[in-house]
Amino acid sequence: MLTYDLTSGSGPLYEKLYRSIKEDIRSGVLESGTKIPSKRALAGNLGISTVTVENAYEQLISEGYIFTSPRRGYYVSDIGSAKITKQEDGRRAKVKMPAREQELVFDFSSNRTENGAFPFSVWAKLMRETISEREKELMEVSPSGGVGPLREAIADHLASFRGMNVSPDQIIVGAGTEYLYGMLIRLLGEDRIYCVENPGYKKLQQVYESSHVRYVLAGMDSGGILVDDLVRLGADIAHISPTHHFPTGITMPAGRRYELLAWAMEKKGRYIIEDDYDSEFRRSGRPVPPLQSMDSGGKVIYMNTFSKSLSATIRISYMVLPIALANEYYRRLGFSSCTVSTFEQYTLAAFISRGHFEKHINRMRLYYERKRRTILAVIRECFSKDECTVIENDSGLHFLMKINTSVPDREVKERFGREKIRIATITDYETGTEIADKHLFILNYSSMDPERLREVLIRCKKLFF
Amino acid sequence: MLTYDLTSGSGPLYEKLYRSIKEDIRSGVLESGTKIPSKRALAGNLGISTVTVENAYEQLISEGYIFTSPRRGYYVSDIGSAKITKQEDGRRAKVKMPAREQELVFDFSSNRTENGAFPFSVWAKLMRETISEREKELMEVSPSGGVGPLREAIADHLASFRGMNVSPDQIIVGAGTEYLYGMLIRLLGEDRIYCVENPGYKKLQQVYESSHVRYVLAGMDSGGILVDDLVRLGADIAHISPTHHFPTGITMPAGRRYELLAWAMEKKGRYIIEDDYDSEFRRSGRPVPPLQSMDSGGKVIYMNTFSKSLSATIRISYMVLPIALANEYYRRLGFSSCTVSTFEQYTLAAFISRGHFEKHINRMRLYYERKRRTILAVIRECFSKDECTVIENDSGLHFLMKINTSVPDREVKERFGREKIRIATITDYETGTEIADKHLFILNYSSMDPERLREVLIRCKKLFF
Repeated sequence: MLTYDLTSGSGPLYEKLYRSIKEDIRSGVLESGTKIPSKRALAGNLGISTVTVENAYEQLISEGYIFTSPRRGYYVSDIGSAKITKQEDGRRAKVKMPAREQELVFDFSSNRTENGAFPFSVWAKLMRETISEREKELMEVSPSGGVGPLREAIADHLASFRGMNVSPDQIIVGAGTEYLYGMLIRLLGEDRIYCVENPGYKKLQQVYESSHVRYVLAGMDSGGILVDDLVRLGADIAHISPTHHFPTGITMPAGRRYELLAWAMEKKGRYIIEDDYDSEFRRSGRPVPPLQSMDSGGKVIYMNTFSKSLSATIRISYMVLPIALANEYYRRLGFSSCTVSTFEQYTLAAFISRGHFEKHINRMRLYYERKRRTILAVIRECFSKDECTVIENDSGLHFLMKINTSVPDREVKERFGREKIRIATITDYETGTEIADKHLFILNYSSMDPERLREVLIRCKKLFF
Repeated sequence: MLTYDLTSGSGPLYEKLYRSIKEDIRSGVLESGTKIPSKRALAGNLGISTVTVENAYEQLISEGYIFTSPRRGYYVSDIGSAKITKQEDGRRAKVKMPAREQELVFDFSSNRTENGAFPFSVWAKLMRETISEREKELMEVSPSGGVGPLREAIADHLASFRGMNVSPDQIIVGAGTEYLYGMLIRLLGEDRIYCVENPGYKKLQQVYESSHVRYVLAGMDSGGILVDDLVRLGADIAHISPTHHFPTGITMPAGRRYELLAWAMEKKGRYIIEDDYDSEFRRSGRPVPPLQSMDSGGKVIYMNTFSKSLSATIRISYMVLPIALANEYYRRLGFSSCTVSTFEQYTLAAFISRGHFEKHINRMRLYYERKRRTILAVIRECFSKDECTVIENDSGLHFLMKINTSVPDREVKERFGREKIRIATITDYETGTEIADKHLFILNYSSMDPERLREVLIRCKKLFF
């Protein structure tokens, strides 16, 4: 007869019994096929109630450690000859997490959005409204491309703000641009050759690399990506940011745009991915119209994100597919669940359609414009014209400082690094074997405190020279 | 001299001027290289202010339609020979959206979560708290695997609720399980052979199919997936749901679990993806421990989602990687942005760590248990024992009705379809050439109204026979 000491340890009695028997089965003390006592007999032996034994047996049955054969009793199952070893202690086992960023005292290139700029109170109000008014829709599964009201709000915004004439059905909403890049690779094909700008965001290369698709790097001149390179490298897909290129700040002129569109039209399967991430923060006049609005051939995939224009808190991006690709998306990938919660989708839809987004953008534009002027004034105060030229370019949240120095870029960066200050150069975003020093340093002012900049420049300006 | 009628149309004057000149350039009226009037001269000619002309010229410059040469004036750029065609009217162009589900009067198999079950008021309260107390963290970019407090809360929950001993660093949070499947394919390799259960969720096949990776289908017996099939088919990765298989409801017994683990241990690169989606709603006793907690070899990737246990509103899933794979994730894919907004991550972290999640689960378990009993009573009231046997299986939110009929499944489904009632059979989830009728119909009671079920059965029971 099975005998266990159930007085020690914690937890309900049935659980202790269940664990004891299971341990005996796992360790081989109770062999496969062994008949175990009836509930009544074991209860009597252990001085506990039949219900307790019944609960323990039920748990053992549901986990497959014992089985019952009607009117014949309970038997130990065959759990195979698997070696029983104690599981490693997960809490102690080590995952090598990425090194925490060392504590920086200043960062010239941080592209963080401004703390406090996010209109929390309006957002919170709309969230509360969404909760109370949309309860039913919130429980519905979102369509693959995003909920209707959000896609409509985005289409209206694109029409009035970017002059784009698109159907809400062409819009696919997703949790971040990287997610959408992954979708695009599945849509356009893993066997195509993708082309990114050099210099450019290194992350794009990582995305393509980790997806195991072929990608090539096209050079740039003052007009943006070189179409000749696209041809020479056999690219199928050109992935560009024509409105405001990072890090050069270049806005692609109309001539190059038409040249690019002509390149895409030349061959079936060629597409342009237009990343319009920074367009809301153009400084003056009307924003430059997107390539998408010049495209009559269904060749441009437009992408943008609210993580940049609104807050990193909001992980919502979207792409506008040409009609034919949208149809292909729904045919082949339409089963995919939308990656953004309905909750945030409806809140954002209300935020856009009631004009809060436009208001926010306008407010931020003015705010950033003032900030830019202050930052520029600080630079002019700290550097003579001979020492530093600012390359402004008429859009976006960063500019370049051309420092008239002979100190190699790497040396400058190391000197600042020792002061726990991060500074990036344009060449950090270039890929190639021999990259010449350009002495072009990136200054991203979106979350920069001008007073801190002044302090840092007064103290560390000498490190540039 | 350029002359335009700027009196008609709407919008600011400078914009009308800008558009008129741009149109002339795009249509070729103004050719590349043409010198255009000075600001002062054009302003005089048109009777408008110099500032207006300046604004229009600036816009044309920034878009690259004209360029300026210091002290020499303004010239039309070369915009190439691109054909200028009017863009198709996007608003009128048609994307063939997936056919809207026809209005159903009843659905036997809907796996929607219960309306009203989501603890909105608690959630809303935590959201407000998150907004006011976490403002700083909300603006920080989330680590790739998710914010620390959420990963810790999940690890604690898994320890107390699922007996799993894992480090928060092994947990990767993502916007939905499909997103995480995609990540896993990149992590485990596009060249591996993935294996899914047959019958099983068809969506898994779609995920692997659309990712262009090879997948095979393994058969099942009453103990779950057949390990022999894994061997025979050369599978590398077994993707299973051992706690509660859909649609059969099978809980994999311990013997098969050890057999599976032994299979995985036999060869480097073999892994098991354990989808534990329904485990919270096991009906009685302790939930069956996950395969992950029996795995001492780092072979099991555990996945679960809050979209199912909490609400479709919450698009947050997670996976627990074995240490070695977690290290590989951070080495190769650690650059990936987390796809869930920090906002929802912190709210969920608070929801779990303050015990609301457990409370919700317990409440829902009782709720579903009562509902299940009511639904079973309705079935027993409407069918004789000869007509219908219910196959219950001790977990999850659905069961099977075995109908004693000779009418082919397809015919039954069509009859119900004509009444706008959806009913699914177990064979709908099987893949193969010849699938025999089993007359096993799926009844998912998670959002089912028992009264409506009674009405439907009284009216339509005859359609089964």
